[in-house]
Amino acid sequence: MQNVKIAIWGFGAMGQGMARALLGRKGIEITGICGRGNNGKSMCEVLGIDCGDHKKVIITDDVDVAIPPKSADLVILATDSFTKKAYPKLENLIEKGVNVITIAEEMSWTWAGEPELAQKLDVLAKQNGVSVLGTGINPGLVMDLLAVILSACMIDVKKVTCRRVNSLSPFGPTVMEEQGVGITPQVFAEKNAKGELAGHVGFAESIGMIAAGMGLEIDEFTQQMQPILTEVDRKSPYGFAAAGTLAGVNMTAQGKRDGETIIDMYHPQQIEPQMAGVDTGDYVVLEGTPPVNMQITPEIEGGLGTIAMAVNCIPQVINADAGLISMLDIPVPRVIMGDYRKLIKEGKKIAQ
Amino acid sequence: MQNVKIAIWGFGAMGQGMARALLGRKGIEITGICGRGNNGKSMCEVLGIDCGDHKKVIITDDVDVAIPPKSADLVILATDSFTKKAYPKLENLIEKGVNVITIAEEMSWTWAGEPELAQKLDVLAKQNGVSVLGTGINPGLVMDLLAVILSACMIDVKKVTCRRVNSLSPFGPTVMEEQGVGITPQVFAEKNAKGELAGHVGFAESIGMIAAGMGLEIDEFTQQMQPILTEVDRKSPYGFAAAGTLAGVNMTAQGKRDGETIIDMYHPQQIEPQMAGVDTGDYVVLEGTPPVNMQITPEIEGGLGTIAMAVNCIPQVINADAGLISMLDIPVPRVIMGDYRKLIKEGKKIAQ
Repeated sequence: MQNVKIAIWGFGAMGQGMARALLGRKGIEITGICGRGNNGKSMCEVLGIDCGDHKKVIITDDVDVAIPPKSADLVILATDSFTKKAYPKLENLIEKGVNVITIAEEMSWTWAGEPELAQKLDVLAKQNGVSVLGTGINPGLVMDLLAVILSACMIDVKKVTCRRVNSLSPFGPTVMEEQGVGITPQVFAEKNAKGELAGHVGFAESIGMIAAGMGLEIDEFTQQMQPILTEVDRKSPYGFAAAGTLAGVNMTAQGKRDGETIIDMYHPQQIEPQMAGVDTGDYVVLEGTPPVNMQITPEIEGGLGTIAMAVNCIPQVINADAGLISMLDIPVPRVIMGDYRKLIKEGKKIAQ
Repeated sequence: MQNVKIAIWGFGAMGQGMARALLGRKGIEITGICGRGNNGKSMCEVLGIDCGDHKKVIITDDVDVAIPPKSADLVILATDSFTKKAYPKLENLIEKGVNVITIAEEMSWTWAGEPELAQKLDVLAKQNGVSVLGTGINPGLVMDLLAVILSACMIDVKKVTCRRVNSLSPFGPTVMEEQGVGITPQVFAEKNAKGELAGHVGFAESIGMIAAGMGLEIDEFTQQMQPILTEVDRKSPYGFAAAGTLAGVNMTAQGKRDGETIIDMYHPQQIEPQMAGVDTGDYVVLEGTPPVNMQITPEIEGGLGTIAMAVNCIPQVINADAGLISMLDIPVPRVIMGDYRKLIKEGKKIAQ
């Protein structure tokens, strides 16, 4: 069988990490890279690695050059967080007859934020015989799918609590700005009122996925953003928070039924959390029979985790029935240390 | 749509727990119970519960009476640990045209212990248009599927270590005997040499599932059973271990490549572990990029966990393509708090 052919749209830290991961795997060929800022350069030159026998791939900002119709079995879209912004790109790809994985957070459970676009994408994907999946580390795994799979050992679930306590220190200047690192409480209040701080994108999606997966009925969704003020100066490679300013933000959300919280989410994000005595980790607590109390310490590294989720779900998405799908529809995702070609079902290959 | 119709073969602690769980759920009807020892009694009488509107089900030891052809959408087989012993029963059910979930440990990855029977079951299931799944808490989730799904956030995996440290105290006299609780080291040595102690059944299956799931190549499988001697008297509802005798057994196993352990399993099982200062829990450590260090404390309760895994996988097995399948083939298992009928795909209903 021919190599599984993958193209990547978006060649920032995520897209580059995916290319690097895929080049280290078996049975994969990268057919095109669409990205801004490196026009005309070769993929391996930008990655700074020796690509050996791999065909030379020239980065272009013209998607029709990078990804002709049916030129790939699947395209990873790594450009946006929001469904609305990703939508025209998804339309372009679906009409080219290729399967798509996107790391747009809202696309992990598109039905939560954009039910109409979800419906349109589903119809379009079915018309074109391809499948479209949103995934990532969070949403996509730690605050949703992991709770879902842990519930499989339970007879009943009364309440789901997910906590992701992570460090923003490894992240770059964009994240520092989106999370308000270093701003004063006054500036935070202003920006928050104007909706200028992204905070975490994905609570509505995670809660939607958990509720649908477990069959928990939810009639209300709420979320909050609070400043995390630091009492001491904190410094990370790309961030600085003086004492009295924000080290980050504390994001919380609730899925409720009749006013009672059934799904409870805590996601404080800050630089240098250990300076406030905070240990990082991912936690899932399921109340019910039997109870489940899980922790992962330290937290799963977000950047690498998202890159891995995308490249590891490729076979499941190529093999899936056509349509807009979610992590609830596909067989358990897993690392792929073997040959991708062995994992593709007969008749599912697109690119020749 | 009609209720999803389920029959149960084997009405001991597991079968009874499954019936109880299913009666508490929506869109389910129990159509038959095949079991020994309660012949002629009604299911709800044996369960000691009020079954409300549910049709009366009389327990019989004649499987052809309990489960006529196509009388159920799925049968849960809760009678055996070993594939060879379960095989004739599976054959009977498959030829009746019903889907099957079994909690026989060896059936969680039948290809490890009985590749020829696996092949026969797969062919037979395909001929009859039904699917057959082996599952349970372990094998089935904590020492295999959970490691597999956690690896989804990784770019590469170098080593997998699973530890399940559990208490045997909740279990009955059969388990006490199978695990050697209370016997002397001399008796242990004799019984172990003769293969009379079951210990844990499922290491070969868990390692097989992990290796296949992640694409890790393994060329050797080894396992060991060692006595856990107690320094003080320990007493549980059904077990007693005097000082100097066995509180249980320490089961270990390794999946190796070129002599190096790639998959490492630890499963000490004993009564009253806290008397030796042992905290129970389930642990998965994945070495690689990024590393994952997971713990569930205390351990997931085995009996309830196995009951739940069986009843929660019903929709996935009914919906699956025909054949012998595994936990790697189906969408992520999860608790079902909603209506089973909404989860069955069109055309997959068997019993009318």
